[in-house]
Amino acid sequence: MENFSFYAPTYFAFGKDAENQCGQLVKRFGGSNVLIHFGGGSVIKSGLLDRVKKSLAAENIAYTELGGVKPNPRSGLVYEGIKLCREKKIDFILAVGGGSTIDSSKAIAAGAVYDGDFWDYYEGKPVEKALPIGTVLTIAAAGSEGSPDSVITKEDGMIKRGASGEAYRPKFSVLNPALTQTLPAYQTACGITDIIAHLYERYLTNTKNVEVTDRMIEALILAMVNEAPKVMANPNDYDARANIMWGGMMAHNNSCGVGRSQDWTSHNVEHELSALYDCAHGAGLAVAMPAVFTYTLQHDVMRFAKIAVRVWGCQMDFDNPERTAKAGIEALRNFLVSIGMPKNFAELGAKEADIEKLAHTCCYGNGNTSGKISGFTTLEQKDVEAIYRLML
Amino acid sequence: MENFSFYAPTYFAFGKDAENQCGQLVKRFGGSNVLIHFGGGSVIKSGLLDRVKKSLAAENIAYTELGGVKPNPRSGLVYEGIKLCREKKIDFILAVGGGSTIDSSKAIAAGAVYDGDFWDYYEGKPVEKALPIGTVLTIAAAGSEGSPDSVITKEDGMIKRGASGEAYRPKFSVLNPALTQTLPAYQTACGITDIIAHLYERYLTNTKNVEVTDRMIEALILAMVNEAPKVMANPNDYDARANIMWGGMMAHNNSCGVGRSQDWTSHNVEHELSALYDCAHGAGLAVAMPAVFTYTLQHDVMRFAKIAVRVWGCQMDFDNPERTAKAGIEALRNFLVSIGMPKNFAELGAKEADIEKLAHTCCYGNGNTSGKISGFTTLEQKDVEAIYRLML
Repeated sequence: MENFSFYAPTYFAFGKDAENQCGQLVKRFGGSNVLIHFGGGSVIKSGLLDRVKKSLAAENIAYTELGGVKPNPRSGLVYEGIKLCREKKIDFILAVGGGSTIDSSKAIAAGAVYDGDFWDYYEGKPVEKALPIGTVLTIAAAGSEGSPDSVITKEDGMIKRGASGEAYRPKFSVLNPALTQTLPAYQTACGITDIIAHLYERYLTNTKNVEVTDRMIEALILAMVNEAPKVMANPNDYDARANIMWGGMMAHNNSCGVGRSQDWTSHNVEHELSALYDCAHGAGLAVAMPAVFTYTLQHDVMRFAKIAVRVWGCQMDFDNPERTAKAGIEALRNFLVSIGMPKNFAELGAKEADIEKLAHTCCYGNGNTSGKISGFTTLEQKDVEAIYRLML
Repeated sequence: MENFSFYAPTYFAFGKDAENQCGQLVKRFGGSNVLIHFGGGSVIKSGLLDRVKKSLAAENIAYTELGGVKPNPRSGLVYEGIKLCREKKIDFILAVGGGSTIDSSKAIAAGAVYDGDFWDYYEGKPVEKALPIGTVLTIAAAGSEGSPDSVITKEDGMIKRGASGEAYRPKFSVLNPALTQTLPAYQTACGITDIIAHLYERYLTNTKNVEVTDRMIEALILAMVNEAPKVMANPNDYDARANIMWGGMMAHNNSCGVGRSQDWTSHNVEHELSALYDCAHGAGLAVAMPAVFTYTLQHDVMRFAKIAVRVWGCQMDFDNPERTAKAGIEALRNFLVSIGMPKNFAELGAKEADIEKLAHTCCYGNGNTSGKISGFTTLEQKDVEAIYRLML
């Protein structure tokens, strides 16, 4: 196991009606003048935003609203938020929404207390200072509610990049599984796929003898595989929603990723898809993962066999472990299809003719000057092209 | 899943030589005048204490030393520590040792900033205020390095009780697996047993549909069962020590125990054993667990069958799940014996003649006026007597 540090000081208020604690929580963590950041109409229509505002008002906390976050959140709204924070002397950002809203809020929080362009952080500057952030989560997916990460797309060039730093860990996150019951099935499935991807990206490691985190990752995927069909059959299954919500946070707070090298190839390969086609991140991952895993299988057949046996219940073929490893990837694909995810370029709306461009941007774009993407394996443009071709 | 809050803001520095970060960490979390609290000679002999002091000195942090903590830590030393803190105007407690040292440090930390008797906290007063605490862990076992809990024995009457509260979460914990390599096999095994007990106590729940935490608990037990024989065969197996150390923290920081009722019957039953015979807590648990589980099996046969199949690899007997459930308990007992743990009263040094007294103290002592112990099941004195008899 490699040396590491782990620090996840987010307070979680989990359960029914937990959003009514927002006011008390903002107060506890030092906020008095809040920017409420959110996406579209659903948080308004559902009455969630009103409940949040009521909770803030009950504690005499002032607030300003900024809506309009879209999936794959853009820099434009971030600049708007930063300007608003400065004008209104905001001292706390409250994100009400999913990963996009939380990531956008994190970017605003960093930019508001930085003299330069917030985009510097997305070009590699460590995020050491930001306004405190709280979240009210409306979809189990990105894990941003408990992570130090944020991904933003710069409209100039449609460059999608991540930033990370301790200041990006939310002070608190409100996790009410009931809020996710109104999500359409497709979005629910995209969220589950994203959670599973966060787990695979950590599972695919070159670090030896990390059984405790291997087992934790397997446990969380197993829980997703068990609970997903329940919410597909009954969107109002509160307990299944709750299991997925806590699992989604645990999948990405990195307690199961410490002390081991990680992969993130599927995310890299996917980011180009959602950047170019504006597809849902989870949907892109559903298509990307089986292709990436098939292409990189030979790098460590036994690791893929291990997850095939332990998570997907495949029989271990002791004479031919590769057969088991492949069966595990096929089981993953079948599971994703069973919850309504796309399985190829056509279903995703992606085009074969774009493959060279996609692979080139993946290896040379987004500030990557190496011509490679590295993690579990090191891949060059021709490899990435081959991976996209496996998605046809 | 039940509503819950979860807050675990401890910074973990994990890995080789991590103790050299002590000075920086104390400084980061606001300490300038430290009480170093420790147990016997091993931390001195190994040079650990010197390295810790050197690290503090490098940051110009003053310190006072207080050694002498014994297993099942006593109130006498706590009072001494509190007096010392006041005299020396201590502003940070650094525990260098195992669960006993950390628990004793927590009690001192609370008592030092409280006008009354620190024991009030161990009679039920919530711990809301304490000096900040850091730890340098030397045995993977109690999980106190990441938990809000502390257990102290009051010498007047040998009353063993727990206290809990947010102020008891360490600000930081240094986890260097190499520090545990010099532990005798018996202590290592006691620690592993304690970790497994923390997981079983959470597994035995009456809350339905908590698959995500069920799976996490199973994962952590599986990791212990995989790694324990490695350290028994080779005490210097760093990676196995590392897996056990991170697993021990995760087992008790409660991320796998949230939103579900828990048990703690085995701990209750064991506390009387270590209080009366001063045996190692882990050794007492090794004898207590199989007896408690056998006695309470009928309360939820399928739950015991589930852990038997998923953790212990037992075949599910679909016609007679009870047979599977019992096989799982037997597998646990065999595993504990295989790592050198005692299996009955005689091996523990306990006496049949004390059973009535043990059961009576369990149900009526330690501030328990109900005559019962409750968790997974509710047990009266006659039940507890029967459980002790199963340990003969």
